[in-house]
Amino acid sequence: MPPSLPDIFLSEVLGTATLTLLGCGVVANALLSRTKGFAGGPLFINFGWGLAVFAGVYVAYASGAHLNPAVTIGLLVSGNDYAPGVSPDLANTLVYFAAEMLGGALGAVVVWLTYKNHFDATEDPSLKLAVFSTGPEIRRYGWNVLTEVVGTFVLVLVILLFGNTPAQIGPLAVALLVVSIGASLGGPTGYAINPARDLGPRIAHALLPIRGKGGSDWSYAWVPVVGPVVGGVLAGLVFYVMPVAATAS
Amino acid sequence: MPPSLPDIFLSEVLGTATLTLLGCGVVANALLSRTKGFAGGPLFINFGWGLAVFAGVYVAYASGAHLNPAVTIGLLVSGNDYAPGVSPDLANTLVYFAAEMLGGALGAVVVWLTYKNHFDATEDPSLKLAVFSTGPEIRRYGWNVLTEVVGTFVLVLVILLFGNTPAQIGPLAVALLVVSIGASLGGPTGYAINPARDLGPRIAHALLPIRGKGGSDWSYAWVPVVGPVVGGVLAGLVFYVMPVAATAS
Amino acid sequence: MPPSLPDIFLSEVLGTATLTLLGCGVVANALLSRTKGFAGGPLFINFGWGLAVFAGVYVAYASGAHLNPAVTIGLLVSGNDYAPGVSPDLANTLVYFAAEMLGGALGAVVVWLTYKNHFDATEDPSLKLAVFSTGPEIRRYGWNVLTEVVGTFVLVLVILLFGNTPAQIGPLAVALLVVSIGASLGGPTGYAINPARDLGPRIAHALLPIRGKGGSDWSYAWVPVVGPVVGGVLAGLVFYVMPVAATAS
Amino acid sequence: MPPSLPDIFLSEVLGTATLTLLGCGVVANALLSRTKGFAGGPLFINFGWGLAVFAGVYVAYASGAHLNPAVTIGLLVSGNDYAPGVSPDLANTLVYFAAEMLGGALGAVVVWLTYKNHFDATEDPSLKLAVFSTGPEIRRYGWNVLTEVVGTFVLVLVILLFGNTPAQIGPLAVALLVVSIGASLGGPTGYAINPARDLGPRIAHALLPIRGKGGSDWSYAWVPVVGPVVGGVLAGLVFYVMPVAATAS
Repeated sequence: MPPSLPDIFLSEVLGTATLTLLGCGVVANALLSRTKGFAGGPLFINFGWGLAVFAGVYVAYASGAHLNPAVTIGLLVSGNDYAPGVSPDLANTLVYFAAEMLGGALGAVVVWLTYKNHFDATEDPSLKLAVFSTGPEIRRYGWNVLTEVVGTFVLVLVILLFGNTPAQIGPLAVALLVVSIGASLGGPTGYAINPARDLGPRIAHALLPIRGKGGSDWSYAWVPVVGPVVGGVLAGLVFYVMPVAATAS
Repeated sequence: MPPSLPDIFLSEVLGTATLTLLGCGVVANALLSRTKGFAGGPLFINFGWGLAVFAGVYVAYASGAHLNPAVTIGLLVSGNDYAPGVSPDLANTLVYFAAEMLGGALGAVVVWLTYKNHFDATEDPSLKLAVFSTGPEIRRYGWNVLTEVVGTFVLVLVILLFGNTPAQIGPLAVALLVVSIGASLGGPTGYAINPARDLGPRIAHALLPIRGKGGSDWSYAWVPVVGPVVGGVLAGLVFYVMPVAATAS
Repeated sequence: MPPSLPDIFLSEVLGTATLTLLGCGVVANALLSRTKGFAGGPLFINFGWGLAVFAGVYVAYASGAHLNPAVTIGLLVSGNDYAPGVSPDLANTLVYFAAEMLGGALGAVVVWLTYKNHFDATEDPSLKLAVFSTGPEIRRYGWNVLTEVVGTFVLVLVILLFGNTPAQIGPLAVALLVVSIGASLGGPTGYAINPARDLGPRIAHALLPIRGKGGSDWSYAWVPVVGPVVGGVLAGLVFYVMPVAATAS
Repeated sequence: MPPSLPDIFLSEVLGTATLTLLGCGVVANALLSRTKGFAGGPLFINFGWGLAVFAGVYVAYASGAHLNPAVTIGLLVSGNDYAPGVSPDLANTLVYFAAEMLGGALGAVVVWLTYKNHFDATEDPSLKLAVFSTGPEIRRYGWNVLTEVVGTFVLVLVILLFGNTPAQIGPLAVALLVVSIGASLGGPTGYAINPARDLGPRIAHALLPIRGKGGSDWSYAWVPVVGPVVGGVLAGLVFYVMPVAATAS
């Protein structure tokens, strides 16, 4: 029996909340003051985000564990179902989008609670924002969009090639793919590669009473939405021309 | 044939001893003086603890490898069996609790023997305690409890979603989950997320004739017991509302 | 139905492009100025390359995911098919070689686009070249060739022992093997262990209008071609004398 | 059909040579001068050794991939076969021992060739020896033996619990176990946990014409033989009392 709309909604909210709880959490651990993971380095952060996806996929397994509007769009464009028995129609699409965005924001709220004293102990407002949302090291919007397109394209294309449900080593494959993209393509912009992972927490940052916070950098906020959407669409299109293996794996 | 009570006891003692032997061991390697792993960094410690769970699960496979009273409580609240054929009744529950706590203490004793010269070569008594038990970077009990609740909630909920026995990639999934929680939610308190992992070794610290040791920080000892217990209960409750996947994985 | 020649070509181009996109990408992240992964360290780079293979194998799964002329040669010498239904004849061999080399160059072009601002912000031309191609720490051609022979021999022999298609944990096995060779045998020359991974990007480096670039070090370019070819041939020969397991895994 | 004695010999020689080639190789990369992995840190070395086991197990799969006399002894004491159809009799035992020791030495010879220029560029003779063999950070033979006993006990016991052939995630499980023991119990002595891994390369160090080498520290050489042998025997004995899982994994 396929999941109902409320089941899909709940599943994706909880899964995406797990994703940003653990993902934004590792950034908090590495950047905020007086934490045990302070200055943990790039591999630490990359593994943290990869394993955040790992846990999130288990939580949202019932709904196909999109956790990311770019994945939803990639499935839509490529003509795949969203999950076994869940067709890519308008109602379903909107439910996935809403759940992903809400979950992304919720997870970030819990990160703030978990690291409350460390947010208070950190002076630099840009570090506080960096826990929630991505920002470029060199701000040039065109190039920043391109970087997000490339990273999301790789993410969604390889996920489509996994099949649209976890297989073989299961959620670990997606986790390792995210570690890979973070390490390899995350240098310029911090690899949002997911509008819900960036915009959801950014809204949380704007609304929460974070002590000594600065602005939420709304001028950049469109980049980690547009880039991933374009990347997801491209991956869905390229999927049509990919050769198919002779034998199922 | 399900395991007998003595089998469960032996299995969980040895498994939890393996967990704290390897888990407290990596902290000894990173913190004590004149070790080869000195200053190995947060990812080193996170992987050490994650793989400590990995080994411990193999050792205690026969009894379901709880290794953690919060997991036992999560299974109890969620209505799952403790292992194939082992029902969550009072006698079994007490056997798991006792074995986990004893095993946790035993493993820490062996760490002390293994690193004996390095305990002696280390001056700071707080580093010696840190090998055994967790402590907060910023001591505010309410927030510290909250952090332990969140970390344990994620741990137990995802373990319940694995099913109550290892599946797919087996014990590796739990190991990676622990790496994830350590990296992402371990920053403020050092992620006890397991009363047996913290209280067992703390008792060992209090009893062992460790040269130049300080106090065992009993004023904090309740936090890594209460937080994980609450987190485990919450996970067991939330498990009831989780949507179930249409097809078994 | 085995893949057609155009399918093989497309599959290996895209797979090898994914390999160098993610592989050269992690080097860009670690070496170029003002990136988030700056000075990520050797393990960061090793995991980046290993997971680049991981993603590339999924992309080129339909054609057996050689991604490397040394692997193609190893299969040829050992008498294995290139993929189910694809025999090691001359036409197929040339298609694999051409696709691997073209893909290797293409991936490097996309790295340059993705990190465009960071190439511009980096002064040292040798760092820019290092993103594309390998170079020895101590330049002595004979010893450098030997190092590449040893690394490629281990790579191809173990891949042949996996069977010539992914098995058990699938592409992850090859990924971990590449992490291993990088960590253990990559110290002297940076482990090209793949002519397409080195020569393809080197050609891209020579052709692209990279601001402030230096020479492409053509005097070294033969080493990461000859070494891997010799290593692949030796692995294919040694494969004949390897004892075979009594039971299939 | 079980492997013949010559097959067992060849298989274990090549597998153990792969183990020390990749294992001693990562130490060379981290310790010798002018390498790309210089100062890679403890996690880098731990993963290098773990994945060295990973590759070695594939190479020696036909003979059960002992690669370590302590594993052979553990199987002997526990009453398991050495590989499917290979009984633990005296002739087989001696063939395993001889092959492991010879392979251990051979792999170290290839490391020396691979890193020849870097051995020459390194001044400190103790670093050159450290590539080949382990040594304690604090030299107290009794405690050093104890540390090696504990580490090997965990290694062999958990391997016996895997079954005496790879299962589930296959060789990756052993690899991760070795990463774990290295990170957690390797701090005092560098975790030989394998007489062939230490004594084989030590003999190679004594015989090879390494420029500027010092002594081979023969006064310590018995520790990483006796400790692992005792640890293997204890693991084989404890295996008898381990509860067995109700259902095969």
